[in-house]
Amino acid sequence: MRITLSPVRDDGYSTDNSDVSGDIDIDHPEFGILFDVDGVLARGSTPLEPAKRAFEKLKDPVTGKLRVPCAFVTNSCNRSYEKAAQIGSWFNLKVTPEMVIHAPTPAKLLNDVHQKHTLVIGQEHRLEIAAELGFTNLCTLDDVTKAYPLLDMVDHENRRRVASGCYTENPDFPQIEAILLLAEPVKWESNLQVLLDLLLTEGKPVEAPKDQKTVNQLPLIACNMDLQFMAEACMPRLGHGAFLVCLEALYKKITGNELEYSNLVGKPCELTFRFADHTISTMAKEMGFHKPIKRLYLIGDNPNVDIYGANLYNRYLRNVWDNYRNGNVNNRASSGLPKSRIIPDHPDLHEQTVEQCHALLVGTGVYQHTENDNTETAEDMNHNEDKTVYHGHRDIDHDPDLSKPQRFVADVEFAIKHILEKEDFTIS
Amino acid sequence: MRITLSPVRDDGYSTDNSDVSGDIDIDHPEFGILFDVDGVLARGSTPLEPAKRAFEKLKDPVTGKLRVPCAFVTNSCNRSYEKAAQIGSWFNLKVTPEMVIHAPTPAKLLNDVHQKHTLVIGQEHRLEIAAELGFTNLCTLDDVTKAYPLLDMVDHENRRRVASGCYTENPDFPQIEAILLLAEPVKWESNLQVLLDLLLTEGKPVEAPKDQKTVNQLPLIACNMDLQFMAEACMPRLGHGAFLVCLEALYKKITGNELEYSNLVGKPCELTFRFADHTISTMAKEMGFHKPIKRLYLIGDNPNVDIYGANLYNRYLRNVWDNYRNGNVNNRASSGLPKSRIIPDHPDLHEQTVEQCHALLVGTGVYQHTENDNTETAEDMNHNEDKTVYHGHRDIDHDPDLSKPQRFVADVEFAIKHILEKEDFTIS
Repeated sequence: MRITLSPVRDDGYSTDNSDVSGDIDIDHPEFGILFDVDGVLARGSTPLEPAKRAFEKLKDPVTGKLRVPCAFVTNSCNRSYEKAAQIGSWFNLKVTPEMVIHAPTPAKLLNDVHQKHTLVIGQEHRLEIAAELGFTNLCTLDDVTKAYPLLDMVDHENRRRVASGCYTENPDFPQIEAILLLAEPVKWESNLQVLLDLLLTEGKPVEAPKDQKTVNQLPLIACNMDLQFMAEACMPRLGHGAFLVCLEALYKKITGNELEYSNLVGKPCELTFRFADHTISTMAKEMGFHKPIKRLYLIGDNPNVDIYGANLYNRYLRNVWDNYRNGNVNNRASSGLPKSRIIPDHPDLHEQTVEQCHALLVGTGVYQHTENDNTETAEDMNHNEDKTVYHGHRDIDHDPDLSKPQRFVADVEFAIKHILEKEDFTIS
Repeated sequence: MRITLSPVRDDGYSTDNSDVSGDIDIDHPEFGILFDVDGVLARGSTPLEPAKRAFEKLKDPVTGKLRVPCAFVTNSCNRSYEKAAQIGSWFNLKVTPEMVIHAPTPAKLLNDVHQKHTLVIGQEHRLEIAAELGFTNLCTLDDVTKAYPLLDMVDHENRRRVASGCYTENPDFPQIEAILLLAEPVKWESNLQVLLDLLLTEGKPVEAPKDQKTVNQLPLIACNMDLQFMAEACMPRLGHGAFLVCLEALYKKITGNELEYSNLVGKPCELTFRFADHTISTMAKEMGFHKPIKRLYLIGDNPNVDIYGANLYNRYLRNVWDNYRNGNVNNRASSGLPKSRIIPDHPDLHEQTVEQCHALLVGTGVYQHTENDNTETAEDMNHNEDKTVYHGHRDIDHDPDLSKPQRFVADVEFAIKHILEKEDFTIS
């Protein structure tokens, strides 16, 4: 599937500059802005006032259109058009679904698996969301447990149904060829059991494996690794990352081996930022800007997800450009990343132009600036991250320095002010 | 609560020998037999033929009553009277509920917690089963989530209910003071979330802990640590031990600390065998036998649960008697066990008379004797246990030697024949 949003020339620049033809004086930005949503632009479904003012600063005063390419990078899992409509209405903006990058969205790049018979795990709209990503041959947990009614035995009600003979197997149910973990499901026990069965039998749970060591693990894609999230309760709630912890622990206990993900998707993974980078560049072309995008700014509220991810990507970019300068062009995508974090080649992914990714941390969400804390930069920031327990995913090393932003700002309005000043970019 | 079955004199011998008064020639056994049920006496709800013949060998030909004290030690979790009635009908025996030791049964000895406000986790009959154990102040997960409706947020339906304001908190809900994990529940995500919340807040999840290090973990009792069990499917199914693996992994990931159990109950733990030992001695007295029980025989089908447990207990007994001979009487119960496996003192627990516990492995269940396998004893048994992955609980060290029985026998009939010969015990 094509993932670009507008026609591009081979040199990577848009042929479609109709929007700005006749406006040759306009500044063409060399940067783009990535916004986390909850805690930065809104709390739940209520937009924050500083966010309204921030977008006014980014709009052309005449046309009301954005003058800087922007995208919204959230670890939630939803239908993009719904989120786009919501953000658009909050800030009186035209927001296209392509500008919204949910946790699973970068799985659009995984075209190796799109045609495979894929079990999708999640909650509401999971089939629709997976189809949006390009998956064409999907099934749900219910489909699998209907085909193999002897698998899900934790619930004693089901044991009794089976004991009474009320079931029919479907031996013709096609082999599962890939697993897409979109979001935390309900009834974890059924999901964990069936996932383990499929992983141990290469997707055909009709016979126990003779030797676990020779089993080829199915492609396993996990979107969003957040262990917990804040909701109304006084303490964080279990998220998709907690489900993954259970799956990993059981797989390890049963087989003695580490569970292997083919791809981790969502913040803080590099793949998500690479996709956001692509989105920003594509948008810039759509907006008619001629200059390649060189710098990204991520504005987030969570040091361990947003800031960590932006800094991880910045480190990745440094490797990419070091490789490039050293002539290792073919090797640029992998750059020493673990297997689950390698960015795949995709024919529609534009050439890398971004050189740096800057992280700005706001105090309107997860991160709470303490009263006596006058810090502004990474150097004097002292949020004791290295003393706390690491809640990140197993496949991402714990490096407390990556949780430190380039700059702390009170809110997103200050963030925009800082970016425009730093870029010396005038919107008038 | 009293856990003995009949009046005993202070010297430990029954005053009630009416059954055998007039039968002074009868042999008084110095041994008792512990039967695992599934895979030894039956498969599912069908009794095995060798088991029928085995019990005929143990009955007095005139009275039809058992001539050797027996008990049934199973890791399932049910109401004892139902299992007793089932076993009785299979073998035309009088089986009392006290002869059936389910996984949770030895929690009868934990009278320190019986009065505490206890959350009981499991499936059907969990309140009834916990009450049978002596717990007097119980609640279920539903009670907790009704009192604190903001806790269980994995299910998006519940999030929507909460978002719409359809909930009432009950701040007067009394603090949870202990947790009893009877068996694997349904909706693991809700159970895991609430258990973590209670463990992190000392049973009152209304405020986040200021410092996790100062939290006193609630008493946590886990009954049955079996990771998996065999059912109709081609591969083992997740059991209660799998739920514990998830709880332990999440607790570790979130807090950085190991989850601590106050008590592990069920095979292979020493507590269960100590309880079975007590049961056999009490039965012997009830049956009017005057000699103290010196030896136990466990007949099981699972090397890693039944055989491992019998051997663990045999090792414990060796320590107990070594201590005793060295004059360390007061220290006999702990004998270097980890905290979760310490056998508590209980006023009604009779004095230890058993000196040895022998393990007999049958081939009618989990363990499959291979065709070319002519082995009979531990020395020439070669079931490669040490090469496989350890599926036992974290708090029980992996010692492959403990999975090796004193003797392998084809079925329970051969086991009984072997025991009677070894004991030179004639039933005529």
